[in-house]
Amino acid sequence: MASAYRPQKPVVVIGAGLSGALMATVLGQRGFSVILLEKRPDLRTTDISAGRSINLALSNRGIRALDKIGITDAVLQTTIPVYGRMVHDDRGNTDLQLYSGRKNLCNYSVKRGDLNALLLDAAEGTGRVDILFQATCTHVDLQRAVVYYTKDGQERQIEAEVVIGADGAGSALRRSMLQHSSTLRFNYMQKFIDHGYKELRIPPSGDGSHRIYANALHIWPKGEYMLIALPNADGSFTVTLFLPMEGGEVSFATLQTPEAVRRFFEREFADVVMHIEDLEGDFFRNPTGTMSTIKCYPWKTYGRTLLIGDAAHAVVPFYGQGMNAAFEDVRILDDMMGEDFDGDWRKLFTEFERLRKPDADAIADMAEENYYEMRKYVKDTTFIIKRKLELALEQTFDDFHSKYSLVTYCDEVPYRVAQRLGHCQDDYLMEFSSNLRLETVEHIDLATLLKQIRKACGTPKGTCMSSVKRE
Amino acid sequence: MASAYRPQKPVVVIGAGLSGALMATVLGQRGFSVILLEKRPDLRTTDISAGRSINLALSNRGIRALDKIGITDAVLQTTIPVYGRMVHDDRGNTDLQLYSGRKNLCNYSVKRGDLNALLLDAAEGTGRVDILFQATCTHVDLQRAVVYYTKDGQERQIEAEVVIGADGAGSALRRSMLQHSSTLRFNYMQKFIDHGYKELRIPPSGDGSHRIYANALHIWPKGEYMLIALPNADGSFTVTLFLPMEGGEVSFATLQTPEAVRRFFEREFADVVMHIEDLEGDFFRNPTGTMSTIKCYPWKTYGRTLLIGDAAHAVVPFYGQGMNAAFEDVRILDDMMGEDFDGDWRKLFTEFERLRKPDADAIADMAEENYYEMRKYVKDTTFIIKRKLELALEQTFDDFHSKYSLVTYCDEVPYRVAQRLGHCQDDYLMEFSSNLRLETVEHIDLATLLKQIRKACGTPKGTCMSSVKRE
Repeated sequence: MASAYRPQKPVVVIGAGLSGALMATVLGQRGFSVILLEKRPDLRTTDISAGRSINLALSNRGIRALDKIGITDAVLQTTIPVYGRMVHDDRGNTDLQLYSGRKNLCNYSVKRGDLNALLLDAAEGTGRVDILFQATCTHVDLQRAVVYYTKDGQERQIEAEVVIGADGAGSALRRSMLQHSSTLRFNYMQKFIDHGYKELRIPPSGDGSHRIYANALHIWPKGEYMLIALPNADGSFTVTLFLPMEGGEVSFATLQTPEAVRRFFEREFADVVMHIEDLEGDFFRNPTGTMSTIKCYPWKTYGRTLLIGDAAHAVVPFYGQGMNAAFEDVRILDDMMGEDFDGDWRKLFTEFERLRKPDADAIADMAEENYYEMRKYVKDTTFIIKRKLELALEQTFDDFHSKYSLVTYCDEVPYRVAQRLGHCQDDYLMEFSSNLRLETVEHIDLATLLKQIRKACGTPKGTCMSSVKRE
Repeated sequence: MASAYRPQKPVVVIGAGLSGALMATVLGQRGFSVILLEKRPDLRTTDISAGRSINLALSNRGIRALDKIGITDAVLQTTIPVYGRMVHDDRGNTDLQLYSGRKNLCNYSVKRGDLNALLLDAAEGTGRVDILFQATCTHVDLQRAVVYYTKDGQERQIEAEVVIGADGAGSALRRSMLQHSSTLRFNYMQKFIDHGYKELRIPPSGDGSHRIYANALHIWPKGEYMLIALPNADGSFTVTLFLPMEGGEVSFATLQTPEAVRRFFEREFADVVMHIEDLEGDFFRNPTGTMSTIKCYPWKTYGRTLLIGDAAHAVVPFYGQGMNAAFEDVRILDDMMGEDFDGDWRKLFTEFERLRKPDADAIADMAEENYYEMRKYVKDTTFIIKRKLELALEQTFDDFHSKYSLVTYCDEVPYRVAQRLGHCQDDYLMEFSSNLRLETVEHIDLATLLKQIRKACGTPKGTCMSSVKRE
């Protein structure tokens, strides 16, 4: 932060959502003039639905980035800690599968709006970030770093030092790159999964408390689909149904009437349906969302523009890492700039995309895979045995981390390493567990098991140090 | 063609390039009113560079589609038959590797402009196709099938019965689909290869004849890059250098001066450089092209619009199948409409994309793989032995077809089948050939070899009937 470099022109960040507001704050703290463009009104003064899921799971990678701007405590006060998955079976039985064998390690369920408001406050608090709301970026001149936008019905433009596109899955900056695909050799992929989602709500009980256990992600796994519920600090739960868009026995295409929806929920989710007070209302009022993975490359053009967060690498929501990965982008960029950044944005952007792209691909792929785990495996006996072994290993050995822990809590481990090591451990432990019965798990010699895993998967060096520090 | 169905509104085909002009002709022959939109001027009356490669290899799949509109003979008269690859080694030796062991099977080198002109004549010849030149489609209302375009500086629109996007890799129709990605769950992928290309020219000799052997595709394979030359009917050759854009020892980034280009060609292409008369002029006047694979899905929306050809599935040029695959799209659509098409476009488009998508993916993947074969394998001894065995098998047995033949000549074999069977045969024959020396090839018991291949790869049924008929 001691760098003497001060650009003449402002840095323009497109998108004042979670990653854009954090990025602007970090740049403002560095002493740069920042203009933050946001197409929506100010969510602190206007009641708007962002059109995206209401609550999110904040975990270590995201927290480490928030630490940079000193708002972690304020954020955590608005959250509910979530320690594991509460799996509901077809008979109404529940099983709490902890996320980690280590004490106090958890995710934090946070409302998107609350977090975004704190980030906007932080951006303004730097005294160097000018936020333009209801300003829609139409396109970017990539070579000259000129941002064209409309505000109050007028077409305007800003000459930027550099442009950072934090404008999400529908990024306007990325669209400008796509329009010059051949020149940039711009690789792009968007892939929708066959399932959609619908948000529902469990309101608080009369005394304001949570109607079901608050400190867990509830899952009703059904093989081809699932329901989940994530707690909010106000005593409510955001409930999300993930279901095929069409085809198969049940799909959004077959749930066309209030009666059909009611019958489906009474049959499949009997232990929670009574808590979703306005089931039919929520179902037909809320849109059916679609989910996609977006990959592209390069992320930068001409050393003048850079995509971060969902704009560069949107993921499906099943690992709870979309926001955390976006925040980690900002953390890594800031780390790379260091204390003596001299304005060589081209070098910064080039090194960032080279380092970060394999990690973005890794979390995108793991997020797709995790949907299968959530809706199918969590009630599978072999999987349950495997999770018990992982937790026992984590409780016993400081240096064992399950794939879930590597991804979620080991913020010093790049996603690509978490993927490679995690897959190897998963394969080994699933195979090992398939020969066990639940009753015999406690008799396993864990030291020998860990040695075998190390033999199969190699010995990772110094994984997960900061998460051990944190707790 | 005997169908009584006559839509009220015109069918709009976007793009009067090769596939669009063929599509319009086929629809015109069916009695439909067709409006064909083309952003460029009429290439029959204006000298324009299409910005794409000048000559193309027409083969059986394309010819079979041209048969539908009765212009095959007229087209073939403008072409040069090409019977194989003439491989030039570093010492100037050449080796003609025939494409097929069957007599007279060949590809036809055709000038894009000549073929396009014949197709436009055919479209107009139906009396039902109205071609609007210099009419640029800006976007399409997908649900209402309204095409918005600009002509003479004015914004206009056409209400269409259905809209067929034959507007190539930069398709405006596909762009409209991309703008509604979430609603359509529109999957999209564009991937650029690391190499670019540069077109050069060998002019005819003084007497108008070809300066090097006319009936072959000449290749100078160099491992990391290659030069090729394809004959034109006027005695010239179109020469194409395929080279990494950057990185490595030689790339377009390192060839920045006329001297560097001259030195590179003198050193690497000593047996042809004297024929490329205006080497430096061609090199710095012509653009450096980039190459990409494009995949997307769905190809249709709302039963009202459909992508075909490069707009749906652009491929890299290394299998010579881009145009042939686009023409085959039209042939298959026309076959599917049959004689009693009743106007159920939704059903037609749905069945077409379902049938055709796996074939489009297969040729896209094979085209990428073939670049390695062309620039690396063709001078590899094991590969040369394998090709000799394939040719011997084709000469001896009516029902053996190499992967190349399956793709290029067996127009009754879907690309996906050619890929599966071809890969299996390739793997078997490469392994088998790696244990042979060139001198011993003629002593191989071909009947036993074929039996082993059948055992490994299965017995294909009735492959390649029409190509046998054709010759």
